Amino acid sequence: MLSLADIRAAASQIEGAVVRTPLLASRTLSALTGAEVFLKFENLQFTASFKERGALNKLLSLTPAERKRGVIAMSAGNHAQGVAYHAARLGIRAVIVMPRGTPNTKVRGTQVLGADLRLEGDTLAEAAEFARGLAETEKLVFVHPYDDPKVVAGQGTVALEILEARHDIQCLVVPIGGGGLVAGMATAAKAINPAIEVYGVESTTYAAMYQRVNGLPVSVGGDTIAEGLAVRDVGELPLSIVKRLVDDVLLVEEDVIESAIVALVELEKTVAEGAGTAGLAALLAHRDIFAGKRVAVTICGGNIDTRVLASVLMRGLVRDGRLVRLHIALPDVAGSLAKVTALIGEAGGNIVEVQHQRVFGIASVKTPEVEFVIETRDKAHTAALVARLEAAGVRTKLLA
Amino acid sequence: MLSLADIRAAASQIEGAVVRTPLLASRTLSALTGAEVFLKFENLQFTASFKERGALNKLLSLTPAERKRGVIAMSAGNHAQGVAYHAARLGIRAVIVMPRGTPNTKVRGTQVLGADLRLEGDTLAEAAEFARGLAETEKLVFVHPYDDPKVVAGQGTVALEILEARHDIQCLVVPIGGGGLVAGMATAAKAINPAIEVYGVESTTYAAMYQRVNGLPVSVGGDTIAEGLAVRDVGELPLSIVKRLVDDVLLVEEDVIESAIVALVELEKTVAEGAGTAGLAALLAHRDIFAGKRVAVTICGGNIDTRVLASVLMRGLVRDGRLVRLHIALPDVAGSLAKVTALIGEAGGNIVEVQHQRVFGIASVKTPEVEFVIETRDKAHTAALVARLEAAGVRTKLLA
Repeated sequence: MLSLADIRAAASQIEGAVVRTPLLASRTLSALTGAEVFLKFENLQFTASFKERGALNKLLSLTPAERKRGVIAMSAGNHAQGVAYHAARLGIRAVIVMPRGTPNTKVRGTQVLGADLRLEGDTLAEAAEFARGLAETEKLVFVHPYDDPKVVAGQGTVALEILEARHDIQCLVVPIGGGGLVAGMATAAKAINPAIEVYGVESTTYAAMYQRVNGLPVSVGGDTIAEGLAVRDVGELPLSIVKRLVDDVLLVEEDVIESAIVALVELEKTVAEGAGTAGLAALLAHRDIFAGKRVAVTICGGNIDTRVLASVLMRGLVRDGRLVRLHIALPDVAGSLAKVTALIGEAGGNIVEVQHQRVFGIASVKTPEVEFVIETRDKAHTAALVARLEAAGVRTKLLA
Repeated sequence: MLSLADIRAAASQIEGAVVRTPLLASRTLSALTGAEVFLKFENLQFTASFKERGALNKLLSLTPAERKRGVIAMSAGNHAQGVAYHAARLGIRAVIVMPRGTPNTKVRGTQVLGADLRLEGDTLAEAAEFARGLAETEKLVFVHPYDDPKVVAGQGTVALEILEARHDIQCLVVPIGGGGLVAGMATAAKAINPAIEVYGVESTTYAAMYQRVNGLPVSVGGDTIAEGLAVRDVGELPLSIVKRLVDDVLLVEEDVIESAIVALVELEKTVAEGAGTAGLAALLAHRDIFAGKRVAVTICGGNIDTRVLASVLMRGLVRDGRLVRLHIALPDVAGSLAKVTALIGEAGGNIVEVQHQRVFGIASVKTPEVEFVIETRDKAHTAALVARLEAAGVRTKLLA
């Protein structure tokens, strides 16, 4: 059984070697959600996630003989970087096993931290099996990403820091992958003040903890932008703590997670990965639970691929109606493109892309369709722009 | 003459109403630049820039009669939001004048803060003239963005916070638009410890302070991603302080500013506007000045347009050779696209876009050219991929 004392012990163990990340109030997100929102910026850790806390606490608990033999971890993500970084810092050999399909940014990110990297297995399960085998044959200590009391205790230090910074927090919202973070934070918070509510958050595609807690068969899978939440086998230790201490496990849809990434960039000027925004997504999707409460949301990680982030930002503009596609029937005569672009400019539209559709257009060969991608202020502005084009006799179709 | 006492007074005036932003060490940027880098996150202010400090200090210095009449400010950017937000909070009427071409995100950002917004004039100079006139006729207090001792004193509080957080900072690097921030910070820092070096940073396109300090004619202009630095008429008060206290004004190129935006997103998980990254750009472009020193870099603002940020991120991938365009001559027969895409996949390339070039291709009508946009690990990976295609008999051209 994990206790507050274990988490306090972890806090003094890791102090100075992990960042005491800021907790900052967000007026805009408060207005948006109806709660009083505070953000805990765990994405500002050196390897950009909370995982360092548990990994370091585990490494510091090893016996001298274990330290000498080294450790092994299996992870395609933030846990790998947390273990690799602190093991290298402490002079402990670390073998990291990743499945063969792991995106290269993550492979490189772990490699530069000095780990002995092995790409083995086609799935996480196969990679884990390989890691277990290697741990046995090479007598390495297996550092589990969440099903380990030392790891859970380390993650719990996030809650200590939040409650030291603001004694009056009423509610913690915590993303759930394997459950280590929420279990540690709930253990700390409920021991300090049983009235503090703790909510876990999963994506609807990977609701394994929700299913386990509610006695449902585990059924997960599908594409997700929050790969940090994409866990099938939640930890047994975290599960037992979640059952006992967590008020509820909330589910959020993919599109809300995407919107939350955009909101954090646009409003809070911070970069979060999908899993890192699940807490905010829960506030947006379950307003009634949080309205009026003083809520701390942990931005638990910031490792999002640059190209993915750029796409998410552009998709956000499309969703908000600030980036639209218009198909315009353009008479195939000199000057017609000039006329249409002038109209768009006068209406305040900013043309981003122009593409002629000569083969698949709706009209005749003499009236090819041109696709414009246009930036506008909002949906009302777009409607006004289309009306203006139509009024000038330009056949315009707004694409969804 | 502005003194440390003025800046300390400003600090106690604005305390609690602006965010005491975090100062965090960056191990990665330290490794990259050879300096010991600390980042001051002024982009985490409510309106996402340091401008609130000076604006609020000015507003709090008004007489009851002036407060009752209200204030006016001219700005197309962060100063407008700083004045609008704090005036509304204090119940002071604020008129904000922006030139007519101001991007709509900025117009909207200022409007939602409750200001009385006027779009007047085609240039900043015309808008300023209108604002001066309106100040006169409506007896409003003109809140200058930088040429005002109360404003400069407010901006100087950034240096106080940095040096309170880390007594041993040896060097401050500060972006220069009109010069208010660098003047205030230099006044504070040099009074606390004359050995602290203070460097201002301008873009090569808007080197007005550099030109004034060096007795050169002012000649500025051109496209810049750092519109916050795009000032022709620097403040006379800031200029006199810069001449006396600032060690040097450094210039940075546009492409380095762009790289710095990407580095802050990828490495530091934070969103900075062009002007906000000028300090980091200076560390990257002038390594010799900073190597081995303990340097605080102020990320002075985070208001970057979402679409611009997305483009900058994609351009960064292209610059790093991680996103490349290949023109491939593809025999116009069934199966040839499948063959080429299979080769690309086996070589570890991730196809992002495919476009057939049937009219402007290099080859005959029977061998249309197809343009692939492909994500790779780096330049070496790209070269290996091209070699593999060529070895398989596929004619491939890597576009710059």
